[in-house]
Amino acid sequence: MIFPDALGQLESELAEKFGADGLSRAPDVLAEFAADESHASPVSPQLVFRPASEEQVQCALTLCSRLKIPVTPAGARTGKSGGCVPAAGGLSLGMERMNRILEISPGDMTAVVEPGVITGKLMEEAEKQGLFYPPDPASLRECTIGGNIAENAGGPRAFKYGVTRDYVLGLRAVLMDGSVLVTGHRSIKGVAGYDLTGLFVGSEGTLGVVTQATLQLLPLPRAAAAALLTFRSLDDAADAVTAILLGGMLPRTLELMDDEAIRAVNGQDAEFPPNAAAALLVELDGNDEAELAKQLDELSCRLPAMNCAPASLEIARDDAARERLWQARRSVSRALKSQARFKVSEDIAVPRSRIPEAIRCIKAIGRENGLTSAVYGHAGDGNLHVNFLYGDSRLTPAAERAIDALMRRTLSLGGTITGEHGVGLTKRAFLPLEIDARGIALHRQLKAALDPQGLLNPGKIF
Amino acid sequence: MIFPDALGQLESELAEKFGADGLSRAPDVLAEFAADESHASPVSPQLVFRPASEEQVQCALTLCSRLKIPVTPAGARTGKSGGCVPAAGGLSLGMERMNRILEISPGDMTAVVEPGVITGKLMEEAEKQGLFYPPDPASLRECTIGGNIAENAGGPRAFKYGVTRDYVLGLRAVLMDGSVLVTGHRSIKGVAGYDLTGLFVGSEGTLGVVTQATLQLLPLPRAAAAALLTFRSLDDAADAVTAILLGGMLPRTLELMDDEAIRAVNGQDAEFPPNAAAALLVELDGNDEAELAKQLDELSCRLPAMNCAPASLEIARDDAARERLWQARRSVSRALKSQARFKVSEDIAVPRSRIPEAIRCIKAIGRENGLTSAVYGHAGDGNLHVNFLYGDSRLTPAAERAIDALMRRTLSLGGTITGEHGVGLTKRAFLPLEIDARGIALHRQLKAALDPQGLLNPGKIF
Repeated sequence: MIFPDALGQLESELAEKFGADGLSRAPDVLAEFAADESHASPVSPQLVFRPASEEQVQCALTLCSRLKIPVTPAGARTGKSGGCVPAAGGLSLGMERMNRILEISPGDMTAVVEPGVITGKLMEEAEKQGLFYPPDPASLRECTIGGNIAENAGGPRAFKYGVTRDYVLGLRAVLMDGSVLVTGHRSIKGVAGYDLTGLFVGSEGTLGVVTQATLQLLPLPRAAAAALLTFRSLDDAADAVTAILLGGMLPRTLELMDDEAIRAVNGQDAEFPPNAAAALLVELDGNDEAELAKQLDELSCRLPAMNCAPASLEIARDDAARERLWQARRSVSRALKSQARFKVSEDIAVPRSRIPEAIRCIKAIGRENGLTSAVYGHAGDGNLHVNFLYGDSRLTPAAERAIDALMRRTLSLGGTITGEHGVGLTKRAFLPLEIDARGIALHRQLKAALDPQGLLNPGKIF
Repeated sequence: MIFPDALGQLESELAEKFGADGLSRAPDVLAEFAADESHASPVSPQLVFRPASEEQVQCALTLCSRLKIPVTPAGARTGKSGGCVPAAGGLSLGMERMNRILEISPGDMTAVVEPGVITGKLMEEAEKQGLFYPPDPASLRECTIGGNIAENAGGPRAFKYGVTRDYVLGLRAVLMDGSVLVTGHRSIKGVAGYDLTGLFVGSEGTLGVVTQATLQLLPLPRAAAAALLTFRSLDDAADAVTAILLGGMLPRTLELMDDEAIRAVNGQDAEFPPNAAAALLVELDGNDEAELAKQLDELSCRLPAMNCAPASLEIARDDAARERLWQARRSVSRALKSQARFKVSEDIAVPRSRIPEAIRCIKAIGRENGLTSAVYGHAGDGNLHVNFLYGDSRLTPAAERAIDALMRRTLSLGGTITGEHGVGLTKRAFLPLEIDARGIALHRQLKAALDPQGLLNPGKIF
């Protein structure tokens, strides 16, 4: 229960201190901040504040603590689990004005950024200096580093290069008492004290509001090459993943598409052979183009020897050809959406060897519930995007049952309910299936230590 | 203050439940558990218990909580910061009997191990299946995975492959209330809930006692090649580090030795040219031996073009030659020790670009305090092992002043007081120079949430 008086007071104190610029109660702005790209039900904040500095964040959180107003930080609102939906109303903190790249250091191979920096922009600026920021969530042209940190975002390249957490060396974050917590270091290594940086990454904006991040960069690989392989069965494709890895090849991406995903894009964004029941997009990077192409060529010998011969193998040696191969993978989500009125998408991860079994389970769950199922995603690390499609709203309860069954089966295969999208609102009900009571109790203890009133991004995760 | 009655009761209850096998009060055993390989003053425990199962750990911690007896977990006691020294006496928990490799899965590329497994043993067993556990602390023939997890151990290969934390997917840990916390996942990716796994790694045994770890493995690289480069100045060597990295080469190790380190080993374990003021040991790995050697060859063109020409360049193309080059680097610590009666060694890390300045500071601090200084270590990630050498015990206060100055200068360069050895007892006094009061307060809050009586490994870190 938020008292209207309290909100008025928050607004007038912020306006008095920092002007009316960053504040809004306009219905269209409140509506924008009510939702992200998940299927979480929208909830409007009562007020939006876009701070321009760490000091303004400190002031906003101090006031919210005093006035007992819930506050929810938001990046570009491209999240997939409702993480920035202000579930209890109150204040939405839009971080987009704090969008400066403060420094890119080729000598240290680090970047210092504010949370509102667009991920793709950081990548471009790093590339201009021969440097590489690997995490590549699908929304990278819009999403922000702050949002990536909150959700510990991944992407296709996570397979070789790891996820956002692996690139965050240090943070500045404002806590609900208005204090600034400084974590981590600028050196690549450092073990002084507990890993508070890692604790904040992936905490979905529930522990503090990140105002600055020091990120590790890598030398930019000078070359990349890709191959699109199709297979006569999903099992062959899954065996090929293991054969590729155990053969000593470490691709930067190893993306899988099942028959439904192929059907959705075939003829429009790509041409697949008629017998393609699954496809793998393998992309390598390094510094020697010829060497990369040679490695991909070898696949046509190595895979048949491992009893998982591809039905077709197309190698992209230049950027244009590589872009064409990616087009097939990139258009899957949109193509699937255009095929059915309703689409629910999930984001599980399983141990790598369980991929074939997981996909068989997904297909069975779809059939049992009268839904079409499509699976694609990051096979290299077992992170599968699962889509259930249907055309009639009366099937919504069946879709809900299918998701419930999917989560339980995933866990029984040793997997997790979320590989890279976060728990947020949409998966909160399933978390107790994965984390036992002792673990959840510890989550609550940590949350209480940092936000004793429970005002920061309430209702998320647990 | 531990009551003798309480210790007697702990001993008799443990003996009654689990037999006398795992218990010891023998003076030689107590003396063994009093120290690690740091210069921390030894403190004897009153009792040593070597649990054989998670259940035995649960029972020991429950009893210690009830009887208010401090308890300190220990691995192979090869630590460098006093982390396993039982600073408040009480019970030492020797984890060496829980030393089973429970599973190595080529399909999932994971290992499940108990904490007492020797790190080098895990590496060997993984290699037999074509798999690779990269973290390689110097003590890998003796140290345990449990100790590596407690300290977040690194090693030379950390530069390319990251540190222990990067390979821990999930943990089982017993908390002081006797409950078992299960963290993480077996899939490579997973973002369900806070990163409790990462919080436990590097917590120096102060939050819980790890009883099982699920580790990520990589495909074993099929080839490695190394080059030993010498330089006419330390600045040239430091510039070469940057030139190598910005040239797009990502070696697995990039080890530096300064003039004193070279002098110590020259003529015995290695032959250096007379004008060598610094040396770099560059090791590459991959799947194509010829390609690796070609990359190393290119250094003799690339470095002069970047104004950091090496004085000499020796390439090792086979394992025997590579081993010979490593011999020089590996024998530095022992060779320095044999040169002076007293040697204090520290483990700082600085942002990569500050390496030359850091080394100049170290040399100046040595001179100002009448001490010989030698610097070597992991230049790729800015992690330097600093040694001050002296022959007369009256110089001990000067050595203490030198370490104090070193820590302050390191922090002023944007570095950290410990790159990979941990804070433990030996660096505790310096932690408040690196982490401010808000950060330390948060450490205390997290500690209190998990160990409200402060009985687990007391006196460490903060």
